[in-house]
Amino acid sequence: MIEYYDISGCYILRPWACSVWDHIRDFFDREIKLLGVENAYFPMFVSKSALEKEADHIADFAPEVAWVTKSGQSDLAEPIALRPTSETIMYPSFAKWIRSHRDLPLKINQWANVVRWEFKNPTPFLRTREFLWQEGHTAYETKPEADKEVLQILELYRRVYEEYLAVPVIKGKKSEKEKFAGGLYTTTVEAIIPSTGRGVQGATSHNLGQNFSKMFDILIEDNDRPGQKKHVWQNSWGLTTRTIGVMIMLHGDNKGLVLPPRVASLQAVIVPCGITASLSEADRAALMAYGKQVEDALRAGGIRVKFDDRDNYTPGYKFNHWELRGVPLRIEVGPRDMKNKQIVAVRRDTGEKTSHSVDNIATTAKTLLTTIQDSLLARATAVRDAHVRRIENWEDFVPALNAKCAVLAPWCDETPCEEDIKKSSAKVDTDDGSGAAMGAKSLCKPFEQPELKAGQKCVKCDKPAKVFCLFGRSY
Amino acid sequence: MIEYYDISGCYILRPWACSVWDHIRDFFDREIKLLGVENAYFPMFVSKSALEKEADHIADFAPEVAWVTKSGQSDLAEPIALRPTSETIMYPSFAKWIRSHRDLPLKINQWANVVRWEFKNPTPFLRTREFLWQEGHTAYETKPEADKEVLQILELYRRVYEEYLAVPVIKGKKSEKEKFAGGLYTTTVEAIIPSTGRGVQGATSHNLGQNFSKMFDILIEDNDRPGQKKHVWQNSWGLTTRTIGVMIMLHGDNKGLVLPPRVASLQAVIVPCGITASLSEADRAALMAYGKQVEDALRAGGIRVKFDDRDNYTPGYKFNHWELRGVPLRIEVGPRDMKNKQIVAVRRDTGEKTSHSVDNIATTAKTLLTTIQDSLLARATAVRDAHVRRIENWEDFVPALNAKCAVLAPWCDETPCEEDIKKSSAKVDTDDGSGAAMGAKSLCKPFEQPELKAGQKCVKCDKPAKVFCLFGRSY
Repeated sequence: MIEYYDISGCYILRPWACSVWDHIRDFFDREIKLLGVENAYFPMFVSKSALEKEADHIADFAPEVAWVTKSGQSDLAEPIALRPTSETIMYPSFAKWIRSHRDLPLKINQWANVVRWEFKNPTPFLRTREFLWQEGHTAYETKPEADKEVLQILELYRRVYEEYLAVPVIKGKKSEKEKFAGGLYTTTVEAIIPSTGRGVQGATSHNLGQNFSKMFDILIEDNDRPGQKKHVWQNSWGLTTRTIGVMIMLHGDNKGLVLPPRVASLQAVIVPCGITASLSEADRAALMAYGKQVEDALRAGGIRVKFDDRDNYTPGYKFNHWELRGVPLRIEVGPRDMKNKQIVAVRRDTGEKTSHSVDNIATTAKTLLTTIQDSLLARATAVRDAHVRRIENWEDFVPALNAKCAVLAPWCDETPCEEDIKKSSAKVDTDDGSGAAMGAKSLCKPFEQPELKAGQKCVKCDKPAKVFCLFGRSY
Repeated sequence: MIEYYDISGCYILRPWACSVWDHIRDFFDREIKLLGVENAYFPMFVSKSALEKEADHIADFAPEVAWVTKSGQSDLAEPIALRPTSETIMYPSFAKWIRSHRDLPLKINQWANVVRWEFKNPTPFLRTREFLWQEGHTAYETKPEADKEVLQILELYRRVYEEYLAVPVIKGKKSEKEKFAGGLYTTTVEAIIPSTGRGVQGATSHNLGQNFSKMFDILIEDNDRPGQKKHVWQNSWGLTTRTIGVMIMLHGDNKGLVLPPRVASLQAVIVPCGITASLSEADRAALMAYGKQVEDALRAGGIRVKFDDRDNYTPGYKFNHWELRGVPLRIEVGPRDMKNKQIVAVRRDTGEKTSHSVDNIATTAKTLLTTIQDSLLARATAVRDAHVRRIENWEDFVPALNAKCAVLAPWCDETPCEEDIKKSSAKVDTDDGSGAAMGAKSLCKPFEQPELKAGQKCVKCDKPAKVFCLFGRSY
């Protein structure tokens, strides 16, 4: 899926990965257009003064900002930053474009690359110095309108993960400590990686409140107070190529990748089998024609398919080749299948092998692909559920983390307590690069809440619990 | 279409412009996939050593390269460049991926931003420090295969300009002086802007020969010489957001933009008319319902349409508003139209006004949009032809340029002569910012050639002419 590169923290998205992103993009772009969002493209360069306009925001991003200081042999008069995100790039224009309530809502999205020059261990897809994303930026007259959109977008993010990538996610709200810098509140979809028990932030949808509109003077006439102006309410929301990494970590097995059919570059591969020395040239040609006929039927049915007719590799080699790459469905055609007007279908996810009539093969394959898609999500959900442990007592907290689980626990919802939990759950002495040395942070306060018992205390401190919160080590 | 930005040479592509690019992208991406090209994404960062590997190449780009030297407060160990183009970024990977003729052809494309920190007058779309493009990079075993693809891609570029943007272009080959640095030869589609007579390079498709494969060790086994290896043949080709600028310059008029229907964000706008004080509330409501019905019918027919039902603006205001923005077709609906089950259609390009039955309105509108698309190209072609002057004598050369024409002239095809032509055609004393001070350069040697007379001499020097070449001042 990726190729390494000679600059640390940068990776090459090979076609197999890029195609997953293209499928996500197609879906998401279509859906946001139905919500009235339009695409634009803003420069990736941002001046120092614009970048530093919102104090909390820049405080969070400053250490990771990459600066251009030279062009050719000349020094620039002032260093110019590469966007880590585009609030400070877009909002001066928003201030020009928005004058009255008739200019609202304004709904802009862009597909772009961003740069966060992190020094922590770079990890393909999950922690990279440049990544691709979409960033939506919208402005409304009132908070309730903005609140509504935050959740509409979060639901689209859930659908990307669950319906396309077959990755179950938990929707919730970030703590004050973990919210977007400079925003009002942040909602998120969180995934859990069973092999490590660590959480991954899947995508976030922020209500920025009026902080940025105050800093950038994005104002409209206030109809209730003639002659007065008021600040707009803003949202921003983003989904990155991290999605691909989460999918890979969840669905790989010891044979390689397992691609969910809806985002697979190839959904089915056809492999001719049983071509032995005793097969006549005419029969061989007939078998290849049969394979081609199956390919044509599948393609006509809208399935992304390849007939692997290479004559210099054995069927066994081809099976491995395509299993490694995660193609959801293998279709085998041999001389006996041809005679019986049949094919053999093999599922990548379960290895299950079934025979089918070649009539209506496209319909059969579509049904199989849907089954695979659904079953990947169902299985991943069951595994995920087994890696979320509900606890109430602190003494169970770290053992649960060490058992590769995220923890759902009653919490006071206060930042000092969150910092205490992080410190108290770090195990620096056992760091083996697995992240075990890492303290737990709050992943989200899930929207779907268990009921708090009367008098329930916070899992860590003595204060009353206000909410169940999902904690975990994280990527 | 654009918004200015606080960093010189950077512009914001507003939704109206971004949507033109999205239409181009949809078409081109679909077509190259039919040719077997796959999308990938490579980092925008390039190390100094990789960038400088091909000497001619870096010599051409070096003055415009932007360098990142800091992250946060820290200096980087070595400056890192932002890609001006990606040959030197991609080809180390090509060397890993290509081992035998079975790995060929390799056909990779990416949609990306690139940076060329130019100091010449920045111009929206045409000369910007960051722009969007696609860049295709392919590798073949033999030169004839690479040659063939160069022209297949050039034909797609012609189609983008002529079929989508209604901009007539001339296909040809660049001179040695104007070819891509480090490549073998460059083909191009060139447009002429009638208002200035200057040429614009529309898009280029290069055969890189084996220069880069030698520098980056992209080798396969040579079947003809056992144990020996040979270098692959490579192409690269790119199309940028400059396309949008060329379209705007060609089709604007004194009322504003004129958008070709195939790339127009909105293809038709419906404006209710004749809503006077004497119109009853019921009749007004009926008229609005009628407008909505027309909108629904057009949308169902696949037309990108908007019903401008704003009640706080007059029809005249709306006419201007949408004319300025270049919407190809205006549909007026008034009380009398409604009674007669008619609509009035007004073409943006000619102002022509016609009445049509509301039955089959989508078919009617589609026919009108096709007529507009075709007629924009036909008119632009006639105007372009009038701005290309065929001459044989040097004394006619500069007068033709000054009459806002490009020049088609017999030429020796030698670099010193091209430099002489450039120098001799510059008129530094009359520079008014129009580019008139600029000397002419060779735009291309058109594939479609007039016949050279026996003994024909070069338009400038005394050597025999080898070819007709298109010269012009340029953007």
